[in-house]
Amino acid sequence: MFSSDVYKERRARLMSMVGSGIIILPGNVEQPFNYQGNCFPFRQDSTFLYYIGVDMPGLVAVLDCDSGSEVLFGASATIDDIIWTGEVPTVEEWALRAGISNSQSICNIRKYVAEVHPDTFHYVMPYQAEVASMLGLILGISVEELKHQQSNKLILSIAKMRKIKTDLEIAELEKAASATADMHREAMWLLGSAAYMGKQLAERDVMAAMSGVALGRGYYHSFAPIVTVHGEVFHNHGYQETLRKGQLLLMDAGCESLEHYAGDMTRTLPVGGKFSKRQKDIYDIVCSANEYVAKSARPGISWSDMHDRAARVIASGLKDLGLMRGDTDDIVQKGAYALFFPHGLGHLLGLDVHDMEPLGEDLVGYSNALRRSTLFGKNCLRFGLPLEEGMTITDEPGIYFIPQLIDMWHEKGRFSNFINYDKVEAYKGFGGIRIEDDLLITASGCRVLGNPLPRKAADVEECMARWIDMARI
Amino acid sequence: MFSSDVYKERRARLMSMVGSGIIILPGNVEQPFNYQGNCFPFRQDSTFLYYIGVDMPGLVAVLDCDSGSEVLFGASATIDDIIWTGEVPTVEEWALRAGISNSQSICNIRKYVAEVHPDTFHYVMPYQAEVASMLGLILGISVEELKHQQSNKLILSIAKMRKIKTDLEIAELEKAASATADMHREAMWLLGSAAYMGKQLAERDVMAAMSGVALGRGYYHSFAPIVTVHGEVFHNHGYQETLRKGQLLLMDAGCESLEHYAGDMTRTLPVGGKFSKRQKDIYDIVCSANEYVAKSARPGISWSDMHDRAARVIASGLKDLGLMRGDTDDIVQKGAYALFFPHGLGHLLGLDVHDMEPLGEDLVGYSNALRRSTLFGKNCLRFGLPLEEGMTITDEPGIYFIPQLIDMWHEKGRFSNFINYDKVEAYKGFGGIRIEDDLLITASGCRVLGNPLPRKAADVEECMARWIDMARI
Repeated sequence: MFSSDVYKERRARLMSMVGSGIIILPGNVEQPFNYQGNCFPFRQDSTFLYYIGVDMPGLVAVLDCDSGSEVLFGASATIDDIIWTGEVPTVEEWALRAGISNSQSICNIRKYVAEVHPDTFHYVMPYQAEVASMLGLILGISVEELKHQQSNKLILSIAKMRKIKTDLEIAELEKAASATADMHREAMWLLGSAAYMGKQLAERDVMAAMSGVALGRGYYHSFAPIVTVHGEVFHNHGYQETLRKGQLLLMDAGCESLEHYAGDMTRTLPVGGKFSKRQKDIYDIVCSANEYVAKSARPGISWSDMHDRAARVIASGLKDLGLMRGDTDDIVQKGAYALFFPHGLGHLLGLDVHDMEPLGEDLVGYSNALRRSTLFGKNCLRFGLPLEEGMTITDEPGIYFIPQLIDMWHEKGRFSNFINYDKVEAYKGFGGIRIEDDLLITASGCRVLGNPLPRKAADVEECMARWIDMARI
Repeated sequence: MFSSDVYKERRARLMSMVGSGIIILPGNVEQPFNYQGNCFPFRQDSTFLYYIGVDMPGLVAVLDCDSGSEVLFGASATIDDIIWTGEVPTVEEWALRAGISNSQSICNIRKYVAEVHPDTFHYVMPYQAEVASMLGLILGISVEELKHQQSNKLILSIAKMRKIKTDLEIAELEKAASATADMHREAMWLLGSAAYMGKQLAERDVMAAMSGVALGRGYYHSFAPIVTVHGEVFHNHGYQETLRKGQLLLMDAGCESLEHYAGDMTRTLPVGGKFSKRQKDIYDIVCSANEYVAKSARPGISWSDMHDRAARVIASGLKDLGLMRGDTDDIVQKGAYALFFPHGLGHLLGLDVHDMEPLGEDLVGYSNALRRSTLFGKNCLRFGLPLEEGMTITDEPGIYFIPQLIDMWHEKGRFSNFINYDKVEAYKGFGGIRIEDDLLITASGCRVLGNPLPRKAADVEECMARWIDMARI
């Protein structure tokens, strides 16, 4: 938790932007694993963390924009709680740490809200079903109605603040990025040592080693890690495959700092320690696209444009290999590259790994002037607006050979003027390559967050070969 | 997943026990971590796993006890799903694996249920809010009403089946127990090596090492691990404390086999590698209680009696140390030991680590003839009925010095005829010791599940000293 002044200032600014009415900020509750008494590790809601900072379940903050009054509602511990879960601060103590002088039992919240009866309530529709039910009870409306009455004014105000990171936040993002880079370096070391010693690994061994780096710092994953020899399947959460020499292992993983700022990086490694010529050709295109973005991103350029520019690099590289043909501008404008790169270039990063996704991607990432693309592939770009100093965003181009998608497009003859399907067929089974870094937009450009992590093919191979230096004996 | 015959037989038996009406078995849905698109690892509901076996979110099985017909409802994958999460079996294929010949789109479930309109629906109140809402919609009643109309007949039938483990289940519980024992041995090795090399560890290093053992086999924690120098706080889920020589480290952790059967063991280690005299005195009492239970548990004895017998061993040991006094039978009958041992002796173990807790502890663990104790401490005993062959249960006595509880009882002069408060005061800061194994009740007694894990103080110390043999270089 930062100092109470940080949260006080943020709330004052939020209330001033929203102008009038009551803002309700509910925190998260614990989520059952297989029953109510056996929960997943608690994760606080990111907007609640941003404005209140208290990392405990079952709290609700109520901010009155007109009077400026602030109340934190929650439940205090009983002697049974103390025996079972230890002595924790009271709601009053938590409130003070957040700079809130008024705290009350959660039992009073309905009465309190009924008594202030303002014209307007501002809230964001909760994504936890229990929180939505509770908010419905507090406001006396159904969960269905709740969905239709969330406050765009509140959402846009939160997004305006959260999208520009302060120095305090950047320091946290650096910690998360450095730990995330360490997770990936650990994987490079493990694969390098296994290749040298002829040891058989499975995806789960690599996942476990990467998790160990995060957990050993007290950090938790910022999302379920992807560690797969099937990189062409984007959100692949199984870890059962055995690694065979000659395969590519795609690892998309990251962890949260203690203040819950996310790291999110991807590397694709050659099992066995060396890329084949065919792998390296594709790898180099993805790497060029990634590095092009890291060199060109700067305030004023829209991320939608950056996506197209990265797509140009990819299309141009695939033309050189004979997999595509025709005019590069046409390929990008019509979206033909999306057979190989059917996702967005990157997403905002912050307290959420897809920052502010629960506020609604279109509200946060687009505007009336810039609507989300309807092109297949680019329609997955989660953010399209111009970059601003202080934004943090992932840079994650990729090239994939997805058999089902190739078959579907090939049968329909889709973009057959741009795609050399005969050659593409030969790449079925290749898998996929993605390279992802975390960028901070600066006044004049951008920089990669965290300790350096090898990116170019030769650097990755060298790092894997240096496993003996990295072994902690 | 086991063979389809296993699930078919289980369902046939369940339908015959319930007799008539429709049984609705809803599976779990994914739970958001910090937004709907970023979920915790999926955990299927254990009752659904037991009767259907399919480990995928968003499924509902409907069993008609009168006609014997069975339908599995779910959603099939789109091309977008295939791109993002890979090719998965269709609902039809999953149904066949579970031995169910009829599958339908989840969209049809309301219509289907409305058309069969039986006199009775049988269901267990879901613990996931989303599942409860869905079940309410299917049945056309509110979530509040849902709570009052769950089927005790269904619950008692499920409990009757799930509490007696088959050979297939015992094999899974053995795998979970052996992997769990390996997690603990890894911790002994880590603490031993750190003591030898003078390396400073924190709780989180131990937690990370234990997690690595589980994750490296593709197993997931069966509950949030407790790894703490404050063993007197039962459910302590922080891992920030640094370990100092002379402290006790209590580790209560376990993992699930691939079929989701749980392991759950506790060991308490001396940081530095050797117990002090004072620590060993308390440790030996807890160890005697644990071993007494493992020697005496057998079919016919109630677990409530076993709790009292373990409490006798503890009270008697504490009398020898001068911390308690008076008649041992009185101490046990009146619950005076609960200052030191304020929890239950153990709980059923199976697909849930507290097996069948979501069905209701009192329904599963007690009866009209044997009601839950109202004594402080023993009122936490989750199961009290007579043991039966094929049950699996944890054996986990402990002794703790909880400062807040000592103060509260001391001030009130509670049981001052049995408790020597002057001596007890000197143990504030001692922490807590618990030793837990997983027992299978056999025809004539019981046996400890999993590969052997050191338990006696001397064996634990020896294992820690043998870290060099266990190091995997």
